Amino acid sequence: MALIQTFIALLGDSAVLRSKEDLAGHVTDWRGRYQGQAQCVVFPSTTAQVAEVVKLCHAAQVPVVAQGGNTSLCEGAIPRTDLPETVVINLGRMRQVRAVDPANNSMVVDAGCVLQTVQETARSHGRLYPVSLGAEGSCQIGGNIATNAGGTGVLRYGNTRENVLGLEVVLPDGRIWEGLYGLRKNNTGFDLKHLFIGSEGSLGIITGATLKLHPLPTARAMAWLAVESPQAAIDMLARFQSRCSASLSAFEMLNDVQLNIVLNHVADRRAPLSPSYPWHVLVELTDTCDEALLAAALEETLSAAAEEGMLLDAAIATNGKQQADWWEVRHSVSEGNKKAGIGINTDPAVPLSAIPAFISQATAAAHRIVPGAPIIIVAHLGDGNVHFIPQMQFAQWQALSPAEQDQLSRRVKQAVNEVACALAGTFSAEHGIGQVLTDEMALFKPAVELDLMHAIKRAIDPQQRFNPGRLLPPAP
Amino acid sequence: MALIQTFIALLGDSAVLRSKEDLAGHVTDWRGRYQGQAQCVVFPSTTAQVAEVVKLCHAAQVPVVAQGGNTSLCEGAIPRTDLPETVVINLGRMRQVRAVDPANNSMVVDAGCVLQTVQETARSHGRLYPVSLGAEGSCQIGGNIATNAGGTGVLRYGNTRENVLGLEVVLPDGRIWEGLYGLRKNNTGFDLKHLFIGSEGSLGIITGATLKLHPLPTARAMAWLAVESPQAAIDMLARFQSRCSASLSAFEMLNDVQLNIVLNHVADRRAPLSPSYPWHVLVELTDTCDEALLAAALEETLSAAAEEGMLLDAAIATNGKQQADWWEVRHSVSEGNKKAGIGINTDPAVPLSAIPAFISQATAAAHRIVPGAPIIIVAHLGDGNVHFIPQMQFAQWQALSPAEQDQLSRRVKQAVNEVACALAGTFSAEHGIGQVLTDEMALFKPAVELDLMHAIKRAIDPQQRFNPGRLLPPAP
Repeated sequence: MALIQTFIALLGDSAVLRSKEDLAGHVTDWRGRYQGQAQCVVFPSTTAQVAEVVKLCHAAQVPVVAQGGNTSLCEGAIPRTDLPETVVINLGRMRQVRAVDPANNSMVVDAGCVLQTVQETARSHGRLYPVSLGAEGSCQIGGNIATNAGGTGVLRYGNTRENVLGLEVVLPDGRIWEGLYGLRKNNTGFDLKHLFIGSEGSLGIITGATLKLHPLPTARAMAWLAVESPQAAIDMLARFQSRCSASLSAFEMLNDVQLNIVLNHVADRRAPLSPSYPWHVLVELTDTCDEALLAAALEETLSAAAEEGMLLDAAIATNGKQQADWWEVRHSVSEGNKKAGIGINTDPAVPLSAIPAFISQATAAAHRIVPGAPIIIVAHLGDGNVHFIPQMQFAQWQALSPAEQDQLSRRVKQAVNEVACALAGTFSAEHGIGQVLTDEMALFKPAVELDLMHAIKRAIDPQQRFNPGRLLPPAP
Repeated sequence: MALIQTFIALLGDSAVLRSKEDLAGHVTDWRGRYQGQAQCVVFPSTTAQVAEVVKLCHAAQVPVVAQGGNTSLCEGAIPRTDLPETVVINLGRMRQVRAVDPANNSMVVDAGCVLQTVQETARSHGRLYPVSLGAEGSCQIGGNIATNAGGTGVLRYGNTRENVLGLEVVLPDGRIWEGLYGLRKNNTGFDLKHLFIGSEGSLGIITGATLKLHPLPTARAMAWLAVESPQAAIDMLARFQSRCSASLSAFEMLNDVQLNIVLNHVADRRAPLSPSYPWHVLVELTDTCDEALLAAALEETLSAAAEEGMLLDAAIATNGKQQADWWEVRHSVSEGNKKAGIGINTDPAVPLSAIPAFISQATAAAHRIVPGAPIIIVAHLGDGNVHFIPQMQFAQWQALSPAEQDQLSRRVKQAVNEVACALAGTFSAEHGIGQVLTDEMALFKPAVELDLMHAIKRAIDPQQRFNPGRLLPPAP
């Protein structure tokens, strides 16, 4: 209790939540699957306050969990059940845009800025911050960075990692690393920002960041394709890459199962092409040139492919409304899947050349456990990232005990991930590890790689108190 | 000597150099400024052999220096004078292209592959490996990665760091980290490759890499501009970025001093515009589209700028020969500067918005030490990377003792770097640290950042035997 009183003296009463009711939203993950415990949730307003809080926690030897918008899909931003002394540090009051430098194509922001605020601020300066994902209205940039968030802009602009120039980080002992560099080139020692990006709060608390901005695209063209197979989609991707280069901004693939779920379960969604085709692709080009040039490149590429018999069918969006509607179809997959049944979600990536093999082998592996289950597939194809989702009917699922559900889900996921890893892929492309995939870390990562990670963890957080039990499996 | 005999038994006699004559080329840096010592230089042919050699060195407690093409500008790839027991491991016999995967836009190579081989192999598969620099005919990809090499492709494609997907590394204890991932997305723990990229042999020996390939551009357009000031060049850069986006592939700035040196000292170089203009810019657009589109974008941007009075003059290259000739002018700066006098080279970067202030303040700072010295400026402007080079006449220089030369050179460099750092810049944009800038590391880097680097070094190389005394200043 002494610690809480010190926090109140430091931050003010309203910045230290401690009642069960006040804590509730901060100790439960947003899918409502895990309920942790904490002695309090504090809301510092400045980097100095974060550092003070961390120093106090360090002295008191209590665990620390950093929290942004709490939108982790891996239960990575909430405290554990078995460590009730944990202090949660929520960055939500640190939401200033500190500076925008259009000439340098960069901006400096507090970690608690909501992603959408970052996007809008960039746009108001005629620039693009390109990371875009479903939770952008509530997720915070600090959390995006701590998890190296992916999303739909990766093909053209890279992951969050590729869009961060510098960081400000509070270390586990409360010292502040002032690394807010805004440079494209800086070869002065180990590039520490890359260690903190994607470290999920296990090495430090990101309190500020210098972000990379891009020219704002002014033109867009979009097509919806139907193809025979994943291989045909990959062949089309190669066509678009060699013809349209960097203006290719999205190449998203859905199978018929996924498309029909959206059409049947989400209101007002219409398919651009017949949903009886087996595989569908949304292609988008964006650039700063004349829109007619993009349209011409799109038409030329599609005509050539159609002549060679690479396409079953294709449609080109004729206006902005139609473009938006087609993106709505793509963005409705989560809603549709939730209504249609119980999806056993996975997030693997494989080299693009291995995608057809992955899909057929993973289907066989899943069907050995859940024979005949429909397989939902929605892929950021250009990134090799295939969300492969065996689907259970509600009745099937409810017939199982919670323990059986958990066990079945784990078995299916591990079977799918095993296929991905055997094809030189990964079991977590964009969602991260949190506490739900630490078993996979132990199973699939080379021992030397885990040893290196543990050595780094010990070097930077020797007391192992930052987000304990997350990201890394237990040390051997 | 027992160690050398073991190496011979392991690698064969021809793979273990030990005579003074044989060592010479491997213990002297390519500028001939530093002469180190080593007990031998070994040439393993496989990763397993590298690992064996490192294990033996580890057991014998001798220092290890990894060496590629030995083209470091910072004396980073040669052994020290004061550690004659050092073993140099040269990667030059590991030069296989292990695999090319065009569908995945990736290739796997041995560390000893020469950069030009990598570029040509990619091109033969219709792909681009975009890192390009002066030493590309002899530098090795492993060295490029260990130093995060920059060059002229950074504006469009990023540094070497941005073009590496995975690594294979032999650690200081001889274990092999097999991290040859070929994925665009992989959020499974700390991203270790970024720790080894740019670590200059201080954490491990890179033996293989998975590289990122790009669509091969098929069209090019180029202009040469004369502008009033660096600010005018930056304004033009912003115009090109917002109009041409990713097709802007080079934006290189020279001042009149630099241009005139090339014209006067390198045979057959002709200026596209009058060398009496104060600032010159080479702009290049490349893409996969129709060449006429690039030409149109270039002309449109230049016409608008000319009407607004942003340009003193401009010329557009009319054919490939002229484009090549103009690049030759740019690429002749090192040769010209070497013939024209003694250049005190620096390699800072600053945020683009700070470039005008940097140039004026650095000029003043340099002139306080060497009054009236001509200032050569050649900048990768789009990257904020300004090679700012106060020039001494040969006679002036030769009047100084070697100690005085060294001292003067250090004073000038530190004065320039101090200006860069005060403007939120860096003292080494692309050349790295080696052993020539460790003082600057101690001077300009935040203490917390150095502490973190030392902690990581201790965690991965606890005996501090990998490239000792390079990259990091002595631990406090």
